[in-house]
Amino acid sequence: DSKLKVFSLNSNPELAKEIADNIGVELGKCTVTSFSDGEIQINIEESIRGCDVYVVQSTCEPVNQHIMELLIMIDALKRASARTINIVMPYYGYARQDRKARAREPITAKLIADLLETAGASRVLMLDLHAPQIQGFFNLPIDHLVGVPILSDYFEEKNFDDVVVVSPDHGGVTRARKMADRLKAPIAIIDKRRPRPNVAEVMNIVGNIEGKTAILIDDIIDTAGTITLAANALVENGAKDVYACCTHPVLSGPAIERIDNSKIKELVVTNTIPLGEEKASEKITELSVAGLISEAIIRVHERQSISILFD
Amino acid sequence: DSKLKVFSLNSNPELAKEIADNIGVELGKCTVTSFSDGEIQINIEESIRGCDVYVVQSTCEPVNQHIMELLIMIDALKRASARTINIVMPYYGYARQDRKARAREPITAKLIADLLETAGASRVLMLDLHAPQIQGFFNLPIDHLVGVPILSDYFEEKNFDDVVVVSPDHGGVTRARKMADRLKAPIAIIDKRRPRPNVAEVMNIVGNIEGKTAILIDDIIDTAGTITLAANALVENGAKDVYACCTHPVLSGPAIERIDNSKIKELVVTNTIPLGEEKASEKITELSVAGLISEAIIRVHERQSISILFD
Ligand SMILES: Nc1ncnc2c1ncn2[C@@H]1O[C@H](COP(=O)(O)O)[C@@H](O)[C@H]1O
Ligand SMILES: Nc1ncnc2c1ncn2[C@@H]1O[C@H](COP(=O)(O)O)[C@@H](O)[C@H]1O
Repeated sequence: DSKLKVFSLNSNPELAKEIADNIGVELGKCTVTSFSDGEIQINIEESIRGCDVYVVQSTCEPVNQHIMELLIMIDALKRASARTINIVMPYYGYARQDRKARAREPITAKLIADLLETAGASRVLMLDLHAPQIQGFFNLPIDHLVGVPILSDYFEEKNFDDVVVVSPDHGGVTRARKMADRLKAPIAIIDKRRPRPNVAEVMNIVGNIEGKTAILIDDIIDTAGTITLAANALVENGAKDVYACCTHPVLSGPAIERIDNSKIKELVVTNTIPLGEEKASEKITELSVAGLISEAIIRVHERQSISILFD
Repeated sequence: DSKLKVFSLNSNPELAKEIADNIGVELGKCTVTSFSDGEIQINIEESIRGCDVYVVQSTCEPVNQHIMELLIMIDALKRASARTINIVMPYYGYARQDRKARAREPITAKLIADLLETAGASRVLMLDLHAPQIQGFFNLPIDHLVGVPILSDYFEEKNFDDVVVVSPDHGGVTRARKMADRLKAPIAIIDKRRPRPNVAEVMNIVGNIEGKTAILIDDIIDTAGTITLAANALVENGAKDVYACCTHPVLSGPAIERIDNSKIKELVVTNTIPLGEEKASEKITELSVAGLISEAIIRVHERQSISILFD
């Protein structure tokens, strides 16, 4: 059977190492640096002829750099006669540009899918896409894993008394329902609306949260405006404690400051995007998706169904 | 006939303005900014339905950012029903990665061509490609303009007595010959070679330069190592004065310092890549390619041959 190789680019070296360790292979040897003028230089330092190659790269910040690294790596692997080029993209950047919300907007999430296919990807493995429809942007096989079980298991171990899972907006109710099922808890929804133009938004809470431990769940937390306002509204309306969790901690701009100053007791995230130094907060707990991803890679490589990973 | 519109992205706003002015149109209204997490946000603020759109963007530093801006803009224009999307790329980044020089290298210049086609470009206008073969990487119509006349005209006005045009390496002799034809001058070649491994390179000069005003010509000056060593060798071997010129002033890393400390009397470049603040030197003269490019755009739009621009 053909050989499995795992390569890391520059977004998630630690996660990639963990995945390779789980699978029981060494990380593939390659250097990804820049020439003096900023052009990316990739050297693959071992033969990959006929191999099934898995490349781990999240397109998180610096997103354009990480996308180009990935595309150039795919080009190099293709020309070096890899049998299959499997992209492991724990975080799919530009996923929020998935439709024309206004006139003359790009649909960058679709563009990225086309670019990956053009470069030569054979398959893409992703985690908690902002919109599951993005799967349809590809003509390649996609494996779409979900982070809810990892986040739920963490909270389950806390053995809270009286839990309610809260979606911070209408778009996230399905996700909240999934977590609530696992925790055997009810759900609530933050129903934000602006009564009239130029009047402040009202945070209405649909569902019973009084005296309960509330767990806010979202896929992406970016500037953390939505989630921290939601947390504070929950406390004001009588929630006992507020926890928050998400799969993808983008945490840009004022996010850390907002979280530190909010009523959120603990924010639980995964390592699809590394936190790094600038995103440090005592409130944040990071869980690893390496187990999930390496299990998926092994199953894909052994031609087994991965649907078992969704239970 | 369909309307001509010129849009600028972030690489060359001044050149784009000059081109639009020459053509006699206003620059198209669009904003190209970034979200908090670094993802590019493009808003095209006027209808371009049915128009022939020209987008000015060099893929110079920050190269990966500029490539993604361009691809996303093409996607937005395509979805906004532009009739044709014409890319004006005064400088084509990654052009030096145009072949597998070693095992398992990418051919990024070809990848970029594929990405532009995939995004939806109709035609690409370029200037002094590092290798003219890159034209064949595209299945689209390409207009390939040359900067030699602009550089030659500048030197012609200086009315030097006894000129020799010098190629700093073997690869550039054809270019030097073109300039020499225009200046009715002979050529010389710097014939760099390493006699044995681990022995310093010898700068051998093929051709007569003694007592002459030497003009070094290259397409790209990047870190300026080659050109400054060549200039110093020319002076040591009896050249009266040494001028240098190139179309694309990449000028990364130690370039400015090297030029300032070299025997080069004046470096003449074009504005395919803007010099900006960090690339300031009293030795540098910048010539504009706006006239050449706007003439080409007008001719393309009016379905006239552009071969006249090569005389
Ligand atoms: N990187 C980004 N940061 C902030 N907002 C974004 C980003 N990308 C897209 N958007 C906007 O977010 C909205 C989509 O978010 P959503 O409604 O949650 O799917 C659209 O209106 C986009 O203009
Ligand atoms: N951005 C860059 N900066 C410096 N060297 C590069 C760059 N891109 C490619 N190269 C190298 O330059 C060589 C090609 O240059 P040339 O021989 O002049 O065509 C190849 O060996 C490349 O590895």
